[in-house]
Amino acid sequence: MIYFQCDYAEGADAHILSRLVETNMEQSEGYGLDKHSIRAKELIKKRIGRKDADVHFLVGGTETNRIAISAALRPYQGVLSPDTGHIAAHETGAIESTGHKVLALPNTDGKISAPQVREYVMEHYESPTAEHTVQPGMVYISFPTESGTLYSKEELKALRDVTKEHGLYLYIDGARLGYALASLKCDVTIEEIADLSDMFYIGGTKCGALFGEALVILNDNLKKDFRYMIKQNGALLAKGRMLGIQFETLFEDDRYFKITESAVEKALRIRSAFEKKGIELWGTSYTNQQFPILTDEQIRKLEKDFVFEVWGKAGEKTIVRFCTSWATEEENLKVLLTAIENL
Amino acid sequence: MIYFQCDYAEGADAHILSRLVETNMEQSEGYGLDKHSIRAKELIKKRIGRKDADVHFLVGGTETNRIAISAALRPYQGVLSPDTGHIAAHETGAIESTGHKVLALPNTDGKISAPQVREYVMEHYESPTAEHTVQPGMVYISFPTESGTLYSKEELKALRDVTKEHGLYLYIDGARLGYALASLKCDVTIEEIADLSDMFYIGGTKCGALFGEALVILNDNLKKDFRYMIKQNGALLAKGRMLGIQFETLFEDDRYFKITESAVEKALRIRSAFEKKGIELWGTSYTNQQFPILTDEQIRKLEKDFVFEVWGKAGEKTIVRFCTSWATEEENLKVLLTAIENL
Amino acid sequence: MIYFQCDYAEGADAHILSRLVETNMEQSEGYGLDKHSIRAKELIKKRIGRKDADVHFLVGGTETNRIAISAALRPYQGVLSPDTGHIAAHETGAIESTGHKVLALPNTDGKISAPQVREYVMEHYESPTAEHTVQPGMVYISFPTESGTLYSKEELKALRDVTKEHGLYLYIDGARLGYALASLKCDVTIEEIADLSDMFYIGGTKCGALFGEALVILNDNLKKDFRYMIKQNGALLAKGRMLGIQFETLFEDDRYFKITESAVEKALRIRSAFEKKGIELWGTSYTNQQFPILTDEQIRKLEKDFVFEVWGKAGEKTIVRFCTSWATEEENLKVLLTAIENL
Amino acid sequence: MIYFQCDYAEGADAHILSRLVETNMEQSEGYGLDKHSIRAKELIKKRIGRKDADVHFLVGGTETNRIAISAALRPYQGVLSPDTGHIAAHETGAIESTGHKVLALPNTDGKISAPQVREYVMEHYESPTAEHTVQPGMVYISFPTESGTLYSKEELKALRDVTKEHGLYLYIDGARLGYALASLKCDVTIEEIADLSDMFYIGGTKCGALFGEALVILNDNLKKDFRYMIKQNGALLAKGRMLGIQFETLFEDDRYFKITESAVEKALRIRSAFEKKGIELWGTSYTNQQFPILTDEQIRKLEKDFVFEVWGKAGEKTIVRFCTSWATEEENLKVLLTAIENL
Repeated sequence: MIYFQCDYAEGADAHILSRLVETNMEQSEGYGLDKHSIRAKELIKKRIGRKDADVHFLVGGTETNRIAISAALRPYQGVLSPDTGHIAAHETGAIESTGHKVLALPNTDGKISAPQVREYVMEHYESPTAEHTVQPGMVYISFPTESGTLYSKEELKALRDVTKEHGLYLYIDGARLGYALASLKCDVTIEEIADLSDMFYIGGTKCGALFGEALVILNDNLKKDFRYMIKQNGALLAKGRMLGIQFETLFEDDRYFKITESAVEKALRIRSAFEKKGIELWGTSYTNQQFPILTDEQIRKLEKDFVFEVWGKAGEKTIVRFCTSWATEEENLKVLLTAIENL
Repeated sequence: MIYFQCDYAEGADAHILSRLVETNMEQSEGYGLDKHSIRAKELIKKRIGRKDADVHFLVGGTETNRIAISAALRPYQGVLSPDTGHIAAHETGAIESTGHKVLALPNTDGKISAPQVREYVMEHYESPTAEHTVQPGMVYISFPTESGTLYSKEELKALRDVTKEHGLYLYIDGARLGYALASLKCDVTIEEIADLSDMFYIGGTKCGALFGEALVILNDNLKKDFRYMIKQNGALLAKGRMLGIQFETLFEDDRYFKITESAVEKALRIRSAFEKKGIELWGTSYTNQQFPILTDEQIRKLEKDFVFEVWGKAGEKTIVRFCTSWATEEENLKVLLTAIENL
Repeated sequence: MIYFQCDYAEGADAHILSRLVETNMEQSEGYGLDKHSIRAKELIKKRIGRKDADVHFLVGGTETNRIAISAALRPYQGVLSPDTGHIAAHETGAIESTGHKVLALPNTDGKISAPQVREYVMEHYESPTAEHTVQPGMVYISFPTESGTLYSKEELKALRDVTKEHGLYLYIDGARLGYALASLKCDVTIEEIADLSDMFYIGGTKCGALFGEALVILNDNLKKDFRYMIKQNGALLAKGRMLGIQFETLFEDDRYFKITESAVEKALRIRSAFEKKGIELWGTSYTNQQFPILTDEQIRKLEKDFVFEVWGKAGEKTIVRFCTSWATEEENLKVLLTAIENL
Repeated sequence: MIYFQCDYAEGADAHILSRLVETNMEQSEGYGLDKHSIRAKELIKKRIGRKDADVHFLVGGTETNRIAISAALRPYQGVLSPDTGHIAAHETGAIESTGHKVLALPNTDGKISAPQVREYVMEHYESPTAEHTVQPGMVYISFPTESGTLYSKEELKALRDVTKEHGLYLYIDGARLGYALASLKCDVTIEEIADLSDMFYIGGTKCGALFGEALVILNDNLKKDFRYMIKQNGALLAKGRMLGIQFETLFEDDRYFKITESAVEKALRIRSAFEKKGIELWGTSYTNQQFPILTDEQIRKLEKDFVFEVWGKAGEKTIVRFCTSWATEEENLKVLLTAIENL
């Protein structure tokens, strides 16, 4: 069987493994105060063009969202999110477990818009009983979204404007950030992501690392005492250098971007193959996730040789997901492309 | 400089690294449902002689304590702990952040006793206003303790009895469990640890793994839906196999115990060297942490070549800590022993 | 100005005030252990035909919901509620602040149905990644609903069945319970409410008391240690007898039901007046809240002499709310009826 | 039996009851926006000489502490308190249930001192692993303390200085504030309490009200959005005027202070009676609580006619508590004084 099920089915990019092996007997400070972590932070700050940023390395995405969001909100505040947002749909109420309500807005292609946010916030403050409802304190979006789609620079700017205008934070979940930035349809750079948000994270787990996410804090108000938050949440890794070494490796020579670029290129070849075959795709993903809408028969044929994920229903047909990653081998890809051609 | 500062200064036991490299391109289920995690769980269950146990792999100790304790307690319950216990002293209020008070009892050599627990619980229930105070719901101990000391089998049995008698859970923090079990002064086996507790964890991070703790749940009441707890706390690793592979490696051929045995043997040579020199040691640690009480001059001499941790004051003198681990090299140890001899 | 804005604009039923005055210099135990509280509990248990019930007096509705729901749920569980439910819409995230997500289902006339609940629960458990989402642990409904509507006995039985079948608790918010039971359209008794739920509360604040809600726990699993929950939430009134005296007064001679019956009768006269005038009403409320849909001109006319609440929009027109209560005077009601006639 | 057990055994000062009766049929805004609440706030602000203060009326002391403290602290912060402080000892972990650790310091006569606070805070920040421990964010004291004792102006100023110096809030629990201010040994005024703290509350429940505490916020940083906090905690009373009317009554003509002055005067006569008899008193209370240390025989004699509380052990003897209040009748007091004389 060949797996296209997700982008975390294998271990890590070979450079990362080598580096872990090379550095294994080095002795270093614990809890992320080692030289690899320090250097990795410098590399990231340089790459995003923001020397003033604070960078923290965390293990996983849900953990990162939990800590980042609960650190930013006042107890009575909630976070606006598309209803398909990871925090709204797939984190077992992690945000609520910290006391904060996720205020879900209906998504369009996985996204929410500045006017939606504005309307929600204004309705809240115009209500004579505003204090009987959760105060919106932050906007959460994923980039790319859980559906593989992208916000345009204009859309991001509009969200930035509306959040600034109303005193909300803008936080970007970049679990698959590399795949967004590698997409030809993406019109923002990582520098712009940094300028347009108060916090965002650069996903490692799904982009070639064994594990790890780099949370980048841009807004000064959010920086203070952040390591206390990490420790309290049980997320301060004793051997923090494991994270430092990985991100150091990913941000030397822009390896992070090369890894994701290659994966996106492969994903788009899958997309083309389906399109050529006249098979419709759900949504408009130009990143590493592709969502063809298949008949039962097509599924039966493909699942003989390939593992992929069932995503949902579309009338009689089924939406499925094919993912590529740093680990997708050219050879396996070709087998898939041929299989699609022969559907 | 030679580090004896802690037991997490290096990477991981070489077998673990090799195994990660070997398995890197395997494709597997995410979230700990892979074959390595499954096999590692089987190995552990077999080793502790409890097929009925549930085993969950988590990343770090504070995370494990947070999740285990908050899963077990009712909202108005607290956890009894020695005042030196990790949850009481070094987790930034992680337990309190889940809503539960740590009820600290004065320690003796890092330990609390069954009579202390009994007295606390009885006073609570005898009070006419019991409901105005936190109800004790669990006893937390570390084995070995944060001071490197051990509970005897008799002491553990007494704690088991008193907790059963009063309906409390007994939970054992085994961050350094391997070093306890490897000590010649230890009169319990891991099978007995399992039989005498409701939950305990087998520490990986400080015993040779890159990271990882294996939480073992023995009490049926605590097993239900535990993976929801893990996910909600942001601790369900996408590439869960990283944990599975490590514990598989550690529990093949009893590698875990060999690693810690070697470290303890080295620590006791350090202990002997200090004793021979007539230098008193704080507490009675026969595990991998040794706490000599040094004069300022002795410290000055040793800190030229060695890194070690300041632990506290003892009159005019200072308690410091020397740690050994899987990574302590014989050569470095010898340099230290000579230096002690020449103090 | 004459107020029909809400059912908590005045103080309390005269009998309650007299009783507070009469008993003022009595000396009694604190924290609800006084004889009035004890007697009030007995009266309620007798009235609902359940000697096995536990009754606790609390100050307000949000407080009661917070405590009841957080006492019942496991940390990773959420509570299903109509999206118009008080806990979903008007409690500033009180439930989330205890760590639990409100799982909002689309309402019909303020209600949710057993099939909706079944579908949600089954989808949850059929998902291969159930543990990545919040587990439904309870169904919350209001009776009457926030829209003044009623569940039929059949609908309640169906909800009882589906919750039992799937191991969920059924909790009924009875902030205005008296007005439901007093409605001619209501086909359940308070005894049946008790038999069909795991917990419910009998609202005092909106039904003639100065303040106070009587939480009734039927399910044995929910009874243990409940006073700890109350105290921890800051809701154990020192002078608990204030609550006991009020509920004692309300449940002597069925005063509670007489109070609400009179209010409902007045509300239905308002309803009839609007209907006679050909003015449509929103929803199907046969309790103490009436929601006529008015033109701007009609509103302008009525707001000269009356205070009422704006509820929402209905196309060009506006839904407003008129409430009656124990305090609605016949004289004032007649002025309103005449005004409606002359619209 | 004559009760001297506590200061909340009866209802309320007669003026309060009358006022509730007089205003009963007034129609008013809900949720504390009524004219009585507004006027009561003005009276309090005037009385404490701080027009800039925010005043909020809450139902009980634990509720007030919970909300005030959790509103002020960052998630990883704790609150320093004497180990005898109400939040440390008698609130069922209410503070911990909001996620914050109570950092208990050893008390002297119910009090903590500025040097104790300074030492704790400096040790915290000097630690290289500060972030592994809870950050102190606030100092909580009670005035008078739970032992009836008073801080001198000098002591309060020192606490004010040390908290300002280190960026901590100073919060004063005034559950029995009136009894402190009425004591001849008290050298601070309520105006000074306001100037020396960031927040404090004026206790009503134990000082003549049916229930109710007035939280006064002085520090601007703590004022924003406070009503959201109240609502989320289920503490926004629908008929908020109940609180407004009571505090209006208490702060007209300084009634609050007259009530407590009379009680303290009576308590000191009890104190004198014991002293004259040669019976030692525990601590140095010059407020409404007196703690004689009695033999078993003395207790047996007194408990025939009087109810009082057992407070603790003092060697072979027992510390008990006699409380006076607004409701203590001269006649009953005389019976007690005679009984003491005849011990």
